Amino acid sequence: MQTIGEGWAFPLKRFMNEMELLECMQMRTVTDDCGKRHLLSCPITMHISENQKKALETQSSFAIRYKGEIYAVVHKPQFFPNRKEEICSRVFGCMDPAHAGAEPIMKQGPWLVSGETMHFTKRVAFNDGMDKYRMLPSEIADQIKAKGADAVYAFQVRNPLHNGHCLLLKDTRDQLIKQGYKNPILLLHPLGGWCKDDDVPLKDRMLQHQALFDDGTINPEHAILAVWPSPMYYGGPTEVLWHASSRVNCGISHFITGRDPAGVKHPNGKEDCYDVWHGQKLLVHMKQMLNGVEVLPFKVAAYNKVNQRMEFFGGPGCNKDDFEFISGSRMRAMAKSGETPPSGFMSEKGW
Amino acid sequence: MQTIGEGWAFPLKRFMNEMELLECMQMRTVTDDCGKRHLLSCPITMHISENQKKALETQSSFAIRYKGEIYAVVHKPQFFPNRKEEICSRVFGCMDPAHAGAEPIMKQGPWLVSGETMHFTKRVAFNDGMDKYRMLPSEIADQIKAKGADAVYAFQVRNPLHNGHCLLLKDTRDQLIKQGYKNPILLLHPLGGWCKDDDVPLKDRMLQHQALFDDGTINPEHAILAVWPSPMYYGGPTEVLWHASSRVNCGISHFITGRDPAGVKHPNGKEDCYDVWHGQKLLVHMKQMLNGVEVLPFKVAAYNKVNQRMEFFGGPGCNKDDFEFISGSRMRAMAKSGETPPSGFMSEKGW
Repeated sequence: MQTIGEGWAFPLKRFMNEMELLECMQMRTVTDDCGKRHLLSCPITMHISENQKKALETQSSFAIRYKGEIYAVVHKPQFFPNRKEEICSRVFGCMDPAHAGAEPIMKQGPWLVSGETMHFTKRVAFNDGMDKYRMLPSEIADQIKAKGADAVYAFQVRNPLHNGHCLLLKDTRDQLIKQGYKNPILLLHPLGGWCKDDDVPLKDRMLQHQALFDDGTINPEHAILAVWPSPMYYGGPTEVLWHASSRVNCGISHFITGRDPAGVKHPNGKEDCYDVWHGQKLLVHMKQMLNGVEVLPFKVAAYNKVNQRMEFFGGPGCNKDDFEFISGSRMRAMAKSGETPPSGFMSEKGW
Repeated sequence: MQTIGEGWAFPLKRFMNEMELLECMQMRTVTDDCGKRHLLSCPITMHISENQKKALETQSSFAIRYKGEIYAVVHKPQFFPNRKEEICSRVFGCMDPAHAGAEPIMKQGPWLVSGETMHFTKRVAFNDGMDKYRMLPSEIADQIKAKGADAVYAFQVRNPLHNGHCLLLKDTRDQLIKQGYKNPILLLHPLGGWCKDDDVPLKDRMLQHQALFDDGTINPEHAILAVWPSPMYYGGPTEVLWHASSRVNCGISHFITGRDPAGVKHPNGKEDCYDVWHGQKLLVHMKQMLNGVEVLPFKVAAYNKVNQRMEFFGGPGCNKDDFEFISGSRMRAMAKSGETPPSGFMSEKGW
């Protein structure tokens, strides 16, 4: 609801109706009132039970309430079957209902509800100390203006940032300056919605990101830190389209994408669910649908054991044996067990 | 190979390479050399075994041979994994590998092969008595011209035609004449490629269609009968996009689509795999991608037991109790057991 109401899923103005969901599932787009198609690759729907449907279908409108407060009103409700198996198959490209993104959808109610119109009556707040980071697209656009940025490169993230990320983000600014931009600004835009239980919680991630701003690992003058409200889908190449198209709505000029965006293990435990380069390849290929936003393929950085720092991996003169890849899961395991990561892996304050 | 070589899958000029397959699976399109996206919703790939890959990867080109004859040559072969589970999930929207369209794909080899270019060296012929119906898109365009048609409405079919179909096809001509066309022509375009064992074989279907042309049930002056070379995918809403986009290549102006196109039972045996109206809804919604071809939603006809003929079902004055729906499976069962269908259901010569 927050994602739609705040304008992150433009041109969507309500929970998807049947035609919007069908177009999204099949074509990765939603068509606006003028017939223009916009990239929108992930379903945004509201599921209800059989009993909820019975109660709602005699009403001309209904309210969405949370802790006693009304956040939205749906007018002239429309009901249609929640084709969960089809939605999950098409979005996740996986036949296993235990897929991390499919699992919560497979547990949903049998019906979806949308309406002719939907009105958003109250700004969403969580009162968890993180609301100051929850900026609307228009508020981010204002900050971009206030900073006098002539380029804004967005970085979607759902993990703490190690020095490899920071190297990439600094390098991106350097590259854009070489291209002739005067003041490229980073939009560090961690995902704020639902994610798997073993992902790092939002609050910890925000404290970590803020620590990097505070200790200068990331220069606060060259960056904006804000929360993006979407949940994770673990939808790989399908989801990375959503990661990029959603940020178009806050006025970015560039979007960084890396290896295996929104990736996840296949529930069979044996392999990655997605080809780790399909997300980047697809997004670069489809960039003409991003209203002029350029896609910047991510360079891979890894820990150089000899130089004791994160460095870009590959290219001429790279000695592969000097490098160690420290995955997100390994990082989380080290943090959990109180282990100290190798020197140069992450800013101390951030760790 | 025939589908690509004859131009039914324009702008595809070879078996899909990795990027073409990725775009097809995700976006239902393939991009041409000028950057224009064309609707192409079904994967057209060539799978090989591990051993075939080993043999081919040292070669600069290889030939595709059938019964000793070379039909095509692939230059600079490219290999990539045959992500069968992902392809099937995305195309069929079903988690069951026993889905009628998924089953043969799930049995394929682990690799796909494409090439920088592919040359087609010989026209495909089957020598089964049906080759005269296997017209190229350009040959159909020539026939359209010879008949002086100012509108051509294509009808995709994989079943014998009963009088309900024929009523629809005649009615379509009448409607187009009312719209101002002088000579609308039917392209009756049965699918000629692989289908399920319990579908009616091509030869029987062609004999049935020809019988309707011969006995005047379909006026041969107002119709062209040709075979379309694609296999069935049983891909429902995804496949109907392919049914329509492929026919754009032979110069049609209208495409008829009905209830549950390319539909199939879910392997769970309990339900249809697709929402029976999603195919028609999706195709009508996406018609701007058909290069000006209009989509004509199919009216449902059923057997009126009182009037002993096929009539359009529904609308004002329709007494639902007078009607009986005779499904394709029921029709096949009657034919198999030598039963005679109710009078008026199908032309006698056709039956």
